[in-house]
Amino acid sequence: MRILIENISIVPMTAPDEIIDLGYLIIENNKILEISEGKPPTIHFDKVIEGCNKVLLPGLINTHTHLAMTLFRGYADDLPLMEWLENKIWPLEDKLTAADVYWGTMLAIAEMIRSGTTSFADMYFFMEEVALAVQNSGVRGVLSRGLIGNGPNGEQSLQENVELIKKWNHQAEGRITVWFGPHAPYTCSPDYLSRVADLAKEMNVGIHIHLAETKHEYDSISEQFGKSPIALAEETGLFGCHVLAAHCVHLNARDFEILRKHNVKIAHNPESNMKLGSGIASVKEMLECGLTVSLGTDGASSNNNLDLLQEMRTAAFLQKVANLDPTALPAYQVLEMATINGARALGQEELIGSLAPGKQADMIIMDISKPHMVPCHDVVANIVYSAQAADVETVIVNGEVLMEARIIKSFDEDEVLRNAKLAAKRLTAGE
Amino acid sequence: MRILIENISIVPMTAPDEIIDLGYLIIENNKILEISEGKPPTIHFDKVIEGCNKVLLPGLINTHTHLAMTLFRGYADDLPLMEWLENKIWPLEDKLTAADVYWGTMLAIAEMIRSGTTSFADMYFFMEEVALAVQNSGVRGVLSRGLIGNGPNGEQSLQENVELIKKWNHQAEGRITVWFGPHAPYTCSPDYLSRVADLAKEMNVGIHIHLAETKHEYDSISEQFGKSPIALAEETGLFGCHVLAAHCVHLNARDFEILRKHNVKIAHNPESNMKLGSGIASVKEMLECGLTVSLGTDGASSNNNLDLLQEMRTAAFLQKVANLDPTALPAYQVLEMATINGARALGQEELIGSLAPGKQADMIIMDISKPHMVPCHDVVANIVYSAQAADVETVIVNGEVLMEARIIKSFDEDEVLRNAKLAAKRLTAGE
Repeated sequence: MRILIENISIVPMTAPDEIIDLGYLIIENNKILEISEGKPPTIHFDKVIEGCNKVLLPGLINTHTHLAMTLFRGYADDLPLMEWLENKIWPLEDKLTAADVYWGTMLAIAEMIRSGTTSFADMYFFMEEVALAVQNSGVRGVLSRGLIGNGPNGEQSLQENVELIKKWNHQAEGRITVWFGPHAPYTCSPDYLSRVADLAKEMNVGIHIHLAETKHEYDSISEQFGKSPIALAEETGLFGCHVLAAHCVHLNARDFEILRKHNVKIAHNPESNMKLGSGIASVKEMLECGLTVSLGTDGASSNNNLDLLQEMRTAAFLQKVANLDPTALPAYQVLEMATINGARALGQEELIGSLAPGKQADMIIMDISKPHMVPCHDVVANIVYSAQAADVETVIVNGEVLMEARIIKSFDEDEVLRNAKLAAKRLTAGE
Repeated sequence: MRILIENISIVPMTAPDEIIDLGYLIIENNKILEISEGKPPTIHFDKVIEGCNKVLLPGLINTHTHLAMTLFRGYADDLPLMEWLENKIWPLEDKLTAADVYWGTMLAIAEMIRSGTTSFADMYFFMEEVALAVQNSGVRGVLSRGLIGNGPNGEQSLQENVELIKKWNHQAEGRITVWFGPHAPYTCSPDYLSRVADLAKEMNVGIHIHLAETKHEYDSISEQFGKSPIALAEETGLFGCHVLAAHCVHLNARDFEILRKHNVKIAHNPESNMKLGSGIASVKEMLECGLTVSLGTDGASSNNNLDLLQEMRTAAFLQKVANLDPTALPAYQVLEMATINGARALGQEELIGSLAPGKQADMIIMDISKPHMVPCHDVVANIVYSAQAADVETVIVNGEVLMEARIIKSFDEDEVLRNAKLAAKRLTAGE
């Protein structure tokens, strides 16, 4: 199977000076064969995609989310954090069935494809259903069983995570990766985190965890253990593994050193941090000290969408205003966060995150002809600061066209919408 | 001409408890005749719009923008403020012709219609062209000639503003309103501002001005005059008129009292304030003390789009994180800012800003069936926190359908795109 995309602007995210004004890209099976400016060779192609007035870029990578929480989108917003969690979200989560998680995840995947996301890191439960959703939908995912070590199911869920790795890691043509998902230092004891770290090393997988999200977490961990959440996590041996740490909003100077020393990857979630009133992560400083910072949306109930184009824009604007500096986090750097840095955060920078020969064929085509994208003085600025999800026309993952002309090809979207609506209705009935 | 919109959810913005799950609205000529839940009467309609899976709400109102600056979208982003203005934006503005302003404004109007905006307050130059664009496109606008009192054309532009009022105020079936547009206290002397205030009273029109946008403005005005920009503006007699003050980011406690005492209307521009690193306005406090706060995008070159749906979301999230309080600026309140408060800011709350019998027929229909809008636990939360511009399907202003099924009906959009691209290319040629 050979696909040609021609007459197109290309932002490969290999380097700013490698942006191609007008060129082509050839996909062979699931990999990128060739990328160049100018006209393509006159060989046989099974499919040709015309790219006039469009731009081609790597698929976006969402490094922190809880996909099935799309079922709770817009349910009980604008509430204090603990009231929201304890009285609204947790009671609904208690009612979730495996089927709910499947349809909620498929709904999220439909939304992600429609907004240009091709890979994600998900942490939740009923993760077998999430694996099935990834398998059936054609996207790429890093899945972690959320582990509440201090909860009644701490041991059982750890065992589930181990089984999930054995059964699903590297499945679905390699699109599925499975990691451990210890929830956070305030829900998992240091001993539990150490055991997870040992298992992760033994099984050669990564770890996805929430760290230093709120001031309350920072203060209570500091009070209980005499050290910050980051320092505590280091002490458990967690950082001997590939760690993807979501949030990292509340850090002290030593925390920065610890994160850098162990090359911990950060998933920055600006919209969730804003909506929940958690605070503003020091992304400018993180990038300046060489940390890998990627972008996440978090779950739809604290966002309330899974739109990485919006998330990029918000990330840039938030750093500018937090630093009172319009030069902070420029457009190209934030597009790196959503692409190649996302790949690094998932340990997949050799496979995805940029467009180059030999890499997996994960990419998106955006329409740049609509009024809000005109004129085009700077295509990267327009993608980051002006675009909207509906500009994403075509989505390709692993060489397979998942969406074309905004029609999802890899599954029945209406069936997903129908089942997700039914699940959401049942979950909130009587609330 | 009688239009029926039926089988539709309606968020009239009259009161939160007046949201209609399923109902209808009847337009007669340019006004709303009836709005109700249930089934419509069986009378003759010239046009029927089916609203299944859609929501009807008032057209959004953008109370601070410089429309023709869409021509500079994405040109020279991420630069320090003065470098951006002095070396990039002002040289381009020097080259602008009347025709450029016409096509740049038409481009902006196309983008606004496509994102649900039906009214705006624009401050720029070649404002006759903006008036023509409003007349030709069918939208509603409050136009002010930007007045740089301290500049070489201070007197001439003031005279132009007077002529603009005489010629265009209340024209285009009442869709055009003309005000004065003194730029700011740092570009207009107190004497000049006093003269503008006298003229505004004499001609019975409002005033659109930038106030307290940056810390630099606050400090330099305070140093030069021994008082804040707000206190200085009060002293000139400006606040004896209907004043729409854009930004108001840097205020002291007395400034709040002054603004409240004179019922000055605020245009909050969160994305521009973020992108330019100007700071975060105290919107929560403004609303708590009873000020009218509306929403603006500012020009596209500091945003970089004119999308009020995004602006609402950003406004809410920014207040939540600035106050570290997830309950700050809830969804309904921010939707008020973009609708009825916008109408109040323009002195048109009797005419527009909510859906009620007797009001002008300015409204939008949004699709709520796409994955990112599912499920719909709370339609207002979904509009504010999850929607995107492309969800806006139909736009009606003054009873005229300007867009239907995302096709602009009132002008030739391709012609606008073509001419705007040519203008942008010529302006930046050789830069």
